[in-house]
Order: sequence, then structure tokens, then C-alpha cells
Amino acid sequence: MSERVLVTGATGFIGRHALAPLMRRGFELHAVTRGAAPPGQSPTGVHWHRADLLSHGDHDELLTASQPSHLLHFAWYAEHGRFWSSTENLRWTAATLALVQAFAARGGRRAVLAGSCAEYRWGEPGPCIEGVTPLEPATLYGKAKHATRLLLEAAAADLGIEFAWGRVFFLYGPDEAHGRIVAAIARALLVGERVATGDGTQVRDFLHVEDVAGAFAALLDSSVTGAVNVGSGEGRKLRDLIDAIGVSTGRHDLLDIGMLAPRPGDPDVLLADITRLRDEVGFVPATALGAGIDATVEWWRDVLSAG
Amino acid sequence: MSERVLVTGATGFIGRHALAPLMRRGFELHAVTRGAAPPGQSPTGVHWHRADLLSHGDHDELLTASQPSHLLHFAWYAEHGRFWSSTENLRWTAATLALVQAFAARGGRRAVLAGSCAEYRWGEPGPCIEGVTPLEPATLYGKAKHATRLLLEAAAADLGIEFAWGRVFFLYGPDEAHGRIVAAIARALLVGERVATGDGTQVRDFLHVEDVAGAFAALLDSSVTGAVNVGSGEGRKLRDLIDAIGVSTGRHDLLDIGMLAPRPGDPDVLLADITRLRDEVGFVPATALGAGIDATVEWWRDVLSAG
Repeated sequence: MSERVLVTGATGFIGRHALAPLMRRGFELHAVTRGAAPPGQSPTGVHWHRADLLSHGDHDELLTASQPSHLLHFAWYAEHGRFWSSTENLRWTAATLALVQAFAARGGRRAVLAGSCAEYRWGEPGPCIEGVTPLEPATLYGKAKHATRLLLEAAAADLGIEFAWGRVFFLYGPDEAHGRIVAAIARALLVGERVATGDGTQVRDFLHVEDVAGAFAALLDSSVTGAVNVGSGEGRKLRDLIDAIGVSTGRHDLLDIGMLAPRPGDPDVLLADITRLRDEVGFVPATALGAGIDATVEWWRDVLSAG
Repeated sequence: MSERVLVTGATGFIGRHALAPLMRRGFELHAVTRGAAPPGQSPTGVHWHRADLLSHGDHDELLTASQPSHLLHFAWYAEHGRFWSSTENLRWTAATLALVQAFAARGGRRAVLAGSCAEYRWGEPGPCIEGVTPLEPATLYGKAKHATRLLLEAAAADLGIEFAWGRVFFLYGPDEAHGRIVAAIARALLVGERVATGDGTQVRDFLHVEDVAGAFAALLDSSVTGAVNVGSGEGRKLRDLIDAIGVSTGRHDLLDIGMLAPRPGDPDVLLADITRLRDEVGFVPATALGAGIDATVEWWRDVLSAG
């Protein structure tokens, strides 16, 4: 049976890095975008479809055109700084429930969706473990992801599909939205601007976007069901990350570390246990943090010098 | 400011009993039904609207026509025996999120929705208390209600509405769906059929449907927010309920109590703590169980003899 995957959010940060690994695994690729297909950026052979996933009426046409056996759903409201508490999370919850139902009704077999570490109760001292760490999201975004997973996982058998859910922790890499931490600091230092940061004592789990995308491709290509953490499994202080960007750009002197107050509600530790990802899905991250930061800084250096 | 309430599920078991108490409280009443307005059953002065709430495109037209300041949302998939695990629960979750957002976007001020005791973790020995008893629904229906409440409560401030959620326990009364316990036993005994039941050791919280509807009208007419249990606060063994129906019909001899095995997953105790309903909403149930059963049996007797 042919394996055709429909990728939503295919022009987003994870989505556009997922196309190549999916193709390497032999999937026939169908990708959705609200606007025009990206010109020449995607691997050849990707079938682009135009649809507004928030318009439930578009789902049927999209599924008829793509006839997917697999669904890889990344699309969600992701505007930096606003997505945590925006009521757009409600619209994306509703649209996601409808899309997966329509996918199942048309013979879809396996759906993999993007979740978040924001589903877990924050403030646990150790790594988050699927099925063990309590799910008590503090934010509307986390609640929306939690609600979506809860319902689809419970309904999967009756819908006649396999369902898996990759919980993304923190990520970085080339071509990231400008406001996000690695992109913001790297760009500012490279153009000679001073950067004020917090003291960076928080421990986080950062994974290069190509590893995040590769983990989702592996999860889709497996028969693993339920929630799977997508992280590096290694906790690093934000301070270490900031220092690495300073060193890599050669402008550590522009960093004013400790100038910003911590954000209220920001947990001390957010770290993934990746036993399921490694042992059940069989995926091992390829890029160490230092090398990934160097490559990302290099990418920004090229872009900025070209501009 | 005029108070106009839009009642969904207005032809359902709770909804049709809610129209009179809402009218007594001075609300201008707008009621939704999928089909034609019920002929002559509803209080005069109710404005009936026709809409399919599962068709998100219908929401705007409905809200334009009714312009509600208040929303009382009972509509949900409720087919007896099937609603616990039907994937229709996903469709109603999505439709409910969309309806409340559309209501808020058009200037709605206060929304009250129907939740369920199925949101609570079953198996607790004592009464369920809002904000205390863990929310760990065992069924897809319970998960869908839980997810809906979680998201709307978190988004209410950003949506600019007050939000309250009545958690319904068990109910009975005249004109109930035939498959439900009180209706099924009363009808069968009145027509002289034998009825096999379980041993009835489970403790439940039964409230007459007019009290359930009255509690929702009071909640809508209050400024209480968040989850509020809607129950009697009194635990009764199912056996007591079954016996009362037997005595009231005069055909206790037709009962074969203890013949049916307990349903797997059925909790021993499901009982509401009604402190919030009584002290914050100020609602006190009017109908004691014995009198309510007698009146319900009387109603069935009239219907059956008329037929």
C-alpha cells in the first residue's frame, strides 16, 4: 500500500525541515500551505496544496486531493510572544479535532501531531516522563494541546487510526523566527547590538530543528502510539546557551547577562526524558548543542552579510 | 441593559424544562432547535431559531438573529448508551468552542454550559467537590466535557465573558428518554413487564429535572464563575430508587433485582457536594426523591393510559 503523508504547517519552522527526512523514508509528500507554495525551497517532488485549515469546509477538498494514509500535523497558531495565551488556541483545537476526524473518515491510517512540553506540570525537579509527570498545563496554549491530545488519543480506536503525539521541548536552528531566543541573540550580536538577558539559571532541553523534524519523521514511520517526548534528553542552563552564542559570534562582550528580571511563572527546569524516543522510536539526535549553535550563527552571518 | 438568553439544546431533557424558570427570572428567551419549533409545548414568548450548531457557518446567523447577552448551552450528543464513547463528542467539543467564541465576539457577556460528573475521577469514596476532586475522566464523553471546560475557563477573560459550568450528576423526571433508568423501569412496570436490574448497591445523586433546570437558570442569573456541581447533595442507593418506582407503580412484584451483573468501570459512589450551588448560587432543590418519583410515575401512567 502506498504511503502518502499530508504535512500541515509545512512552511513553518519544524514543518519545512521535515520534508527532506520524510522523503528519505520513502513517503509520497503532500504539503499544505495557506498561501502560494514556497518558490524553490522545498525538495522536488513535494505536492503542494492550498487550504485554510481553520476553515473546516476546506478539509474535505484537501483530503480528496491528497488522499493521505498518514497525517503529520504541525499547523497551529505560533506567533511569538502571543501564542501562550491567545484565544486562537481554541480555534486550532477545534480545527485539529475536525481535521483528524475528516482524515480518519477518508481512510487515513496513522496520525502524528505536534504537542508541547507546556502540557506538563511545570516545576518538577527532574525530567518530564510520558505517562508519569502530571499533565497540568499552566498556559492556554498548553491546555489546548493537552485537550487535543486527550480527546484524539481516547477516540483513536473508534476513529480507526493509529495516533501518536510528539511533545516538543525547546528548539533552535537556521531561519528561526526573529523574536525567539537563539535567533534574537545571534542576530543582535552579529550586527553589533548590545543584548540584555536574564541570569540564565533556568535549565532547558534544546534540540536542533533538524533533529526535531527528524524525530517526527521517525515517529510517523514507526508504529509507536501515544505521547513521545521530542528533546535532547540533556538539560543545559540558558546561561550556557547564551555564552555559546556569544563565543560563536565573537561578540560575547556585547552581552549584558543578568540584566532582565525572570519572567513570572517561568519554571526552573524543563527537561525531556527521551527513553521512548530513543528506545521505542529508535531515534537518536545527531547534532550536539555546541555544533548546532555554531552552524546556526554561521547561517545568520551569511544571511546578514548577503543582505 | 436588556438580558437576552440564547438557549441551545432547548428541546432536550434539561433545556425544555429551563425555559419557564428563565422566563420567571425576566430573561428574553431565544431558543435553538435543529428542526421546527415544538408546537405549543413551550411557554409563550419564546423566540425559536433554527440552526445546526455542528455547522460552524450557522453560528453567525443565529447570533445575529438572537443577539444574546447570555448563553445557556445544553446542546451535545446525548444518544442513550452511545454518548459515552462516540466520536460525536469531538464534534461537539469543536462546535462548542466555536459557538462560545462567536458569542463573545458579538458582545455576549455571560455563558453557562452543561458539564458532567463524568469529568471527575471516579472511585472517590466521598462527594465530588469542585476544585478539589481530581479531574480524571474515564470516558470520552467525560474527557470532551473536561477539555471544553478547561479551555473556555482559561480563555474567558481574554474572550471578555463571564463563564460558568454546571456539572450535572443524575437526573430523572417526566418525559425522559425511554432508555434511561427511571423512565425504563417505570414504563415497563406500568405495562406489566418484568424488569431485571443490578443489585443496586451503587450510590448516586439524583435530582429532578425541574430542579436541574432551575439550578441552571439560577446559575445564569448569578455572577458565579467556574464549575458548580448540580446535584441534590444526597447519596441514595440505586436499590432505593428502584424500590421507590416499584412501590409507586404498585408493581414491585415485577422487579428482578440483582439479576444483572454490574457494568465494568461503574463507580461505587457518585455524589455531589453542593455547597457552591447552595451558598454561592443560592439554589436549593425543591423536590425530594420520593415525591419526584411519585410524580414521574404518575406522568407515565397518564401518558400510557392516553396512548
